[in-house]
Amino acid sequence: MRILILGGDGYLGWPTAMRFSNRGHEVHVVDDYLRRRAHAEAGTDSLTPILPGLPERVAAWREVTGNEIGYTEGDLCDWSVTERVFRELQPEAVVHYGEMPSAPYSMKDREHAVFTQTNNVVNTLNVLFAIERFVPGCHLVKLGTMGEYGTPNIDIEEGFIQIEHNGRSDYLPFPKLPGSYYHLSKVHDSHNIHFACRIRGLRATDLNQGVVYGIQTEETALDERLTTRFDYDDVFGTALNRFCLQAVIGHPLTVYGKGGQTRGYLNIVDTLRCVELAVTHPAEAGEYRVFNQFTEQFSILQLAEHVQKAGAEVGIDVVVDPIDNPRVEAEEHYYNATHTKLLDLGLQPHLLSETLIESMFSTIGRYRDRVILDHILPRDRWRPGVAAPSP
Amino acid sequence: MRILILGGDGYLGWPTAMRFSNRGHEVHVVDDYLRRRAHAEAGTDSLTPILPGLPERVAAWREVTGNEIGYTEGDLCDWSVTERVFRELQPEAVVHYGEMPSAPYSMKDREHAVFTQTNNVVNTLNVLFAIERFVPGCHLVKLGTMGEYGTPNIDIEEGFIQIEHNGRSDYLPFPKLPGSYYHLSKVHDSHNIHFACRIRGLRATDLNQGVVYGIQTEETALDERLTTRFDYDDVFGTALNRFCLQAVIGHPLTVYGKGGQTRGYLNIVDTLRCVELAVTHPAEAGEYRVFNQFTEQFSILQLAEHVQKAGAEVGIDVVVDPIDNPRVEAEEHYYNATHTKLLDLGLQPHLLSETLIESMFSTIGRYRDRVILDHILPRDRWRPGVAAPSP
Repeated sequence: MRILILGGDGYLGWPTAMRFSNRGHEVHVVDDYLRRRAHAEAGTDSLTPILPGLPERVAAWREVTGNEIGYTEGDLCDWSVTERVFRELQPEAVVHYGEMPSAPYSMKDREHAVFTQTNNVVNTLNVLFAIERFVPGCHLVKLGTMGEYGTPNIDIEEGFIQIEHNGRSDYLPFPKLPGSYYHLSKVHDSHNIHFACRIRGLRATDLNQGVVYGIQTEETALDERLTTRFDYDDVFGTALNRFCLQAVIGHPLTVYGKGGQTRGYLNIVDTLRCVELAVTHPAEAGEYRVFNQFTEQFSILQLAEHVQKAGAEVGIDVVVDPIDNPRVEAEEHYYNATHTKLLDLGLQPHLLSETLIESMFSTIGRYRDRVILDHILPRDRWRPGVAAPSP
Repeated sequence: MRILILGGDGYLGWPTAMRFSNRGHEVHVVDDYLRRRAHAEAGTDSLTPILPGLPERVAAWREVTGNEIGYTEGDLCDWSVTERVFRELQPEAVVHYGEMPSAPYSMKDREHAVFTQTNNVVNTLNVLFAIERFVPGCHLVKLGTMGEYGTPNIDIEEGFIQIEHNGRSDYLPFPKLPGSYYHLSKVHDSHNIHFACRIRGLRATDLNQGVVYGIQTEETALDERLTTRFDYDDVFGTALNRFCLQAVIGHPLTVYGKGGQTRGYLNIVDTLRCVELAVTHPAEAGEYRVFNQFTEQFSILQLAEHVQKAGAEVGIDVVVDPIDNPRVEAEEHYYNATHTKLLDLGLQPHLLSETLIESMFSTIGRYRDRVILDHILPRDRWRPGVAAPSP
């Protein structure tokens, strides 16, 4: 299959590209290094030393496996880039990770909020128009987020919900309560993509992904040069990855507030498998389907306890030290999200285990001299000037 | 009260500005003539001859009434404009009409879709950040559209709906099924504004407005120089206004498809009253409320019949001639939308009557030599290359 991976230089994009390439697909990645630039500006970096860019990455991949991955260095907000890529490559599937992915980044100030929404909405519109124009049968697999739903007081369904109201009934988009300007940009995308399917006949799968953890995949394990990035800073790092690193360097785990915030989580190897399942079981023409892509739910405190337990097993004394919550969010709430569609397609989850955490400790330990200490604590508040409710 | 009217050069913006000024408020309007430029590019124009710009309009207003209206010619997507206006004027209420308002415009091609969404989302984000920074207590009254809801098979509520699901219950944003890239931009705005209220403590009223008809308000009637624009072309004209003009010039009424498309409608004088009611009864800090702003529901065929009947009374033979629907939309569907919140605040609707239509005929008749005939029929299809379902 001819597969385009947008955002193919990222934490998930690069391992996804390698996985498809390893399985005999014709893979082409696009990236303009937005995340690398944002890190450079902020003075942060990936824990793992990644090769300087796509030319070096695909060269290493060729050397290790003999497989070719094509690449384009360019910004999908620039129509001339999007147009050329779709016209020339005629992809059968597009996996779209190519967005600014950070909630804290989007909450820094007006400029970052506007940039995040413009970047994500415009590049996705460009992708929709490029598919329609050059490859109308192409299946769009778009990475959304479970964060689009927020924390409603009812069970979260997969994208749509049957609503009975005043004696009538309809199956409608699940109401969204996104918690940052970034999460809002994903909600905007979802509406735009749904529209393109309903009205223009495109086919799309929106993967509402939970929080991903882990470093290693089958392909990154082949050679150290194939490693993917691993972010642990306050802007791009995500919960479990950050906690594991904090444990290794002896930093108290940064639980925000009461720690009752519950979300869906999944292992990076399950992300790759879910994306593969979506690509190999495409949506119908005109169909917009939503899969909730996670395998388990944890509260932040439960995550911290897992890390503590794994630490105890390898002789690390892990301290949990709740700090003021920089976000505005419910710290104790109901949370129960459906996630059966990917299981129905054959996903066999790799659940969180102390063994997995210990193996993350060990990988992190190898790079601990690369840790930049002053970007562990959060810097940006969701509501500047207003103290978060104290834990 | 100090009131800022964004989009104050428009069909509704200018009459709203005059109304508030006439009632003793301190009014300042902002506009960058986006609509005038779009007309100039398309070779279309307002039926009514409007003064060339805001300087001339406010001068005429001063001459006729002795009242001052302040103005800024500038683009709210340019933060330096938004910042200056809010910092210097310290408004207590902002009425935000300042967006690209046309569904057909947004559906022309990729450029128009991207422009519409970028323009509307970015200028509204700028307004939200400007309020937060310079006038945190200021009440935002934002013009949304009933078109955000689409045509679900259940009753449409005012912005939120109580959902019972698996034995639990929550009051959540009403699901949206917008029908164009323009309507999508309004849905994006609604999510952004809701967030700014929930998380940053702003106060806002989102007026989900139906289709407005009419030419005359109390203030436009004072002097011909105070007239507001009246669009009848395929891009900016709206249903009833277009039908009235078509009747006067002897053009068959352009009913799209089966004509069962049902929407909410209201008289322009009721728009002004609704906006006034919202402004004088502000939302609480942190509150995001949605009012469905229309007074009656009609199908397109019912509208056409009203115009036919009014025509018969004044000796005009009005022909209804359904044409292929350029849009992709349900032509027969359930539609029942709640609209009690503005009535509760005191709105006394001016319902559609043959007398009102006849008075529109007479105003239109005065300007009939200004009609540009070749922009009556629709040019842009919602799904290019695909024939709409035939009526």
